[in-house]
Amino acid sequence: MKAIQPTINHHIPTTRGLPRPIRSQHELLFDTHRSLKTPNPATRLAQSLTHMLHLQIESIHTQKTITQSNFSSILEDKSNTPISSPKEDISDIWQELHGSNDWDTLLDPLHPSLKQELLKYGEFAQATYDAFDFDHYSEYCGSCKYNRNKLFEKLGLTRHGYNVTKYIYATSQIDLPQWLEKSQVAETWSMHSNWMGYIGVSDDEESKRIGRRDIVVAWRGTVSASEWYEDFQRNLERFGHGDAKVEEGFLSIYTTKLQSSRYNKTSASEQVMKELARLIHLYKKRGEKVSLTITGHSLGGALALLNAYEAAATFANLPVNVISFAAPRVGNSGFRDELHELGVKTLRVVVKQDIVPWTPGMVFNEKLINEKLQNFDEITGGLEWVYTHAGVELKLDARSSPYLKRGLQLLGHHMLETYLHLLDGYESSKVPFRKDARRDIALVNKECDMLINEFRIPPRWYQAANKGLVQNAHGRWVKPKRDPEDIPSPNNESVSYNEMKHVLGY
Amino acid sequence: MKAIQPTINHHIPTTRGLPRPIRSQHELLFDTHRSLKTPNPATRLAQSLTHMLHLQIESIHTQKTITQSNFSSILEDKSNTPISSPKEDISDIWQELHGSNDWDTLLDPLHPSLKQELLKYGEFAQATYDAFDFDHYSEYCGSCKYNRNKLFEKLGLTRHGYNVTKYIYATSQIDLPQWLEKSQVAETWSMHSNWMGYIGVSDDEESKRIGRRDIVVAWRGTVSASEWYEDFQRNLERFGHGDAKVEEGFLSIYTTKLQSSRYNKTSASEQVMKELARLIHLYKKRGEKVSLTITGHSLGGALALLNAYEAAATFANLPVNVISFAAPRVGNSGFRDELHELGVKTLRVVVKQDIVPWTPGMVFNEKLINEKLQNFDEITGGLEWVYTHAGVELKLDARSSPYLKRGLQLLGHHMLETYLHLLDGYESSKVPFRKDARRDIALVNKECDMLINEFRIPPRWYQAANKGLVQNAHGRWVKPKRDPEDIPSPNNESVSYNEMKHVLGY
Repeated sequence: MKAIQPTINHHIPTTRGLPRPIRSQHELLFDTHRSLKTPNPATRLAQSLTHMLHLQIESIHTQKTITQSNFSSILEDKSNTPISSPKEDISDIWQELHGSNDWDTLLDPLHPSLKQELLKYGEFAQATYDAFDFDHYSEYCGSCKYNRNKLFEKLGLTRHGYNVTKYIYATSQIDLPQWLEKSQVAETWSMHSNWMGYIGVSDDEESKRIGRRDIVVAWRGTVSASEWYEDFQRNLERFGHGDAKVEEGFLSIYTTKLQSSRYNKTSASEQVMKELARLIHLYKKRGEKVSLTITGHSLGGALALLNAYEAAATFANLPVNVISFAAPRVGNSGFRDELHELGVKTLRVVVKQDIVPWTPGMVFNEKLINEKLQNFDEITGGLEWVYTHAGVELKLDARSSPYLKRGLQLLGHHMLETYLHLLDGYESSKVPFRKDARRDIALVNKECDMLINEFRIPPRWYQAANKGLVQNAHGRWVKPKRDPEDIPSPNNESVSYNEMKHVLGY
Repeated sequence: MKAIQPTINHHIPTTRGLPRPIRSQHELLFDTHRSLKTPNPATRLAQSLTHMLHLQIESIHTQKTITQSNFSSILEDKSNTPISSPKEDISDIWQELHGSNDWDTLLDPLHPSLKQELLKYGEFAQATYDAFDFDHYSEYCGSCKYNRNKLFEKLGLTRHGYNVTKYIYATSQIDLPQWLEKSQVAETWSMHSNWMGYIGVSDDEESKRIGRRDIVVAWRGTVSASEWYEDFQRNLERFGHGDAKVEEGFLSIYTTKLQSSRYNKTSASEQVMKELARLIHLYKKRGEKVSLTITGHSLGGALALLNAYEAAATFANLPVNVISFAAPRVGNSGFRDELHELGVKTLRVVVKQDIVPWTPGMVFNEKLINEKLQNFDEITGGLEWVYTHAGVELKLDARSSPYLKRGLQLLGHHMLETYLHLLDGYESSKVPFRKDARRDIALVNKECDMLINEFRIPPRWYQAANKGLVQNAHGRWVKPKRDPEDIPSPNNESVSYNEMKHVLGY
C-alpha cells in the first residue's frame, strides 16, 4: 500500500532556498513521536533553520551505533556502581566555584568539584518537575504532590543535605496561554496559581563541607518547550530603577499578585524576598557566612535571573550566583549590565542543539515569518540586539554522548535530564564523554525518548502506576484522596517557629 | 494565530457524494487522540461511511451531559457498592444459558443470570489482554506476564472459581504484518510465537453452582482494531472436509506449526485439542457433566469459532458454546451451516457503533477503494455473500450508556471493556441503561478514552509504575528480571501430574 504523504496548505514565499511548507512551532516540538526517517516538511524546515543558526544537529543517519556485545558490558558495569562520586570538602574554594572569578579556568576542562555542584543544583531544579502535579483530572493539578518536608525524601535528594523552608507560588496578570496548569475539576485548590518552586538551605553538615550556609532557590520551568517559547515574544518592560528592561511575560509571572487568590495575595517575588530576608537575617545574626544560589531550567532560568537581580539589589554583600539550564534570553543589554554591576554571577549551561536559549529574539514562528519578516537576517540579526544573554556560558554537545539518539530532537535536547547527563559526562571540549560518568543514564528518558534502544529503557517512563488510580475495598478503581498533609494550604507554606530548630539548625 | 489545516494529497474519484480525501484505516483508528471538534477529512469520510452502513454514530455535539451536581451523587453511590451482584445457582437452567435453545426469549429482555455468565466469560477474554506483555523493550514481549497458576489471582478473577490448566501459543506461516508482538531485544524468549490464550476449568464449587464441569478456552485478540482489520482481507481456505471455507489469516494463526520454534512445534489448534481431550476424558471418566465454552474478543472471537468447529467435530455429544465479542466474520455460508449442523451454539455480542464486526467483507481501505471499487454497493452488497456471520447476535448500543463519550470513537467502540460496560447496563432494547449496573465504570478507560470527563478517570490508565523500571540497590533505574516462575517455558505449559489433584479437583 502506498504511504500517504500529508501536505500542508500554508505556504510562505520562497526566499533564499527556505523550504516552503511551514508548520506551527508547537507541531514542530511535539513531532518527536513520529518517525524521522523520512523528513516531513516541518523537519526539513527545522533542519534548515538550525543549520542557518549554526545549531549543530546531525542527521539521524550518521548515528554511530553501539554494538550489542560491547554494550552489554557497559550496561553491566553501569548498573553495579553508585550513581555519584564521593563528596569532597570544597570549603576552601567555594567562592571560586560560586563564580567569584567568573569561573575563569574552571570550565574547560571542567573542575570536578564544580561539576558536582552544578549537578546538585540541576537536581534541585529537576525536583520542581518531578514533584509537580500535572494530572488535569486531579483537583490539585498545578500544585506540588508533596509537602515541603517530604519533597527531597520522596525524590531521593536528601543526600544533598538541604532542607526546604518555603514553597513559592506564581500567577500572571497578562494572558499567557498554556502557561498555567489547570485542573479540569471545578472545586480545585487554586484557580489562579501554580507551584513555581521552593527555597531551601544547607544543613550543618553540608554547610561545613561547602564552607558557608547556602540558600538555594529553585524555579520551575514550563512542561514543554513550545508553550512559552511561542508565547513569550512580547514587549520589554522596565525592571528596577535603571535602564534594565526584561521580557514582560517573565516579569508578569515573577511579580503578579492577585488579592482574590489564595496563594498569590503576594507575588512570587514578594514570597521569595521575604523568606530570603528572614533566612539571611537568621544566619548573619549567628555570624555565619551565607551565599545565595538560584537555579532553574528553561522559564525557570529566566525567573532565576529576575530573582538574582532583585536579591543582589536588596541584600548588600551577599554572594549571588545563578546556575541556569536551557534558559532563554531575559532582558536587554541594560539588564545585563546592571546584573554585572550588582555582582550577580551567572553560569548558563546550554546544549548546542537546544533551540530555546536562542529565544526570545530568535523567532521563527509562522505568524512572524508570514506577516513581518521577509528574510532570516531580520530574525538572527534584527532582534539580537533587543534580548541579550548575561553571564558565562558552559556549552555542552549532545553529540558527545554515545548513549543519546542523534538527529533532530527538539524536545529531547531541551529536557533538563539530558542537560544533566551531558554535564556528568563532560570533562573538556577536547576529550570524549567520560567513560566513568556515574549518573544514572536511564533518567534521560524520564520524559522523552533520547536514549538509544540498546538501553531498553522505555521512553517517557516517569509515571505513577495506573495513573494514580488505586482499588478501593469494593474492588473499584478510584482516584485516592491526597494525603491531608500534602494538600496545599496558604497558611502552611513556610517553616513554623516549632520547626525552626530542626530544619534550620537553629 | 490561524490553525493549520492539513490536507491529504490522495484523492479518489468523487462518486455518489463521497468526500474526496481519504486516509489509511490505520490513521482513522488511531485518531482518537485528536480533538474531534473540527472534523478532519478522515473523520468526515468515516462518518459518511458509517452513515451509509447504518452504523449509529452520533455527532459529538449532541452529547447529553451529566451535570456536576447529580454526577457527584452517582459517583459516590457507585464507589461504595460491590462490583458484582451475588451469584445465583443456575444448575437447573445451565443448558438454556449455554444456548441449547439458541437463547430464545433470553436476550430481550436479557436474562440476569445469562448476563452474569456473559460478563464472566468476557472477563476471561479480557484477561488475555491484561496479562499480555506488550513491552517491546522486554525480552519477554509477546508472552504472558504471569505463569498460569497466578493469572487469575493477579487479575482479581479468582472469584469466578476457575483454574487455568494450559497456556496456548500461536504463530503464523503467512506474513501478517503487525500481528505478532515482537521484542526489540535480540535474546528473546521466542522469535516466532505469541501467547494466544489459555484453557481453564471450573472448580468444584463453581461446577456445583453452574450444574456441570465447564471447560473454558479464552482466545486473545490483537492489540488494536486496525492491524488485522487492514490485513485480513485475504482468501478463503478450506477448513474441515465439507464446503466450509474460512479466512486464511485466521486459519493460519490457528493451525501453523513450526519445527524450528520453541513454542509452536505444535499449532495452537493441536495444543488446545490435546488439552481438551485430556480434560474431557478425565471428567467424563468420573461421570461428570461437561461443557465447553469458548470465548474471545475481536481476532480472538474468530479463533474461538474455528476452535468450536474443530472441538464439536471431534468430541461427540459435547455441548459447545461460543461467546464472542466484537468478532469479525470468519468464513463462508458453508462454514456457518456446518457449525450449525455440529450443534455449535454461538452468541455474538456486538456494539452497534463498532466497525470490526463488519469485516472482512465490509472493506473500505484505501487500496480497495482506489483500485477495485467504484461504488459502495460493491462493498456492502458485493462482498456480503462471501463472509457470513454465524449464530445469534446480542446487539448493544453505545449511546445507551450515559457515561460514555459520544461521537466517532473507532477504537473506544471496539474495546472489550466498553462491551462489558454496555452489557452490564443492558436490560432490554426497550429500557434505558440500568441505574444499578455494578461493574466498575473506570475499567472502560483502561486502554482508551471513552468515559465522560466528569468521572475524572484518566484515559489509558492501565500501566505499570515507571513502565516497569525499579530502582536497584545503587539507586539506578533498571528493568527488573522477570520472576523465574513467570518466565515462559515450553515444557511447563500444562498442568503436571502433581498439580492435578489440586487444580482439577481430582
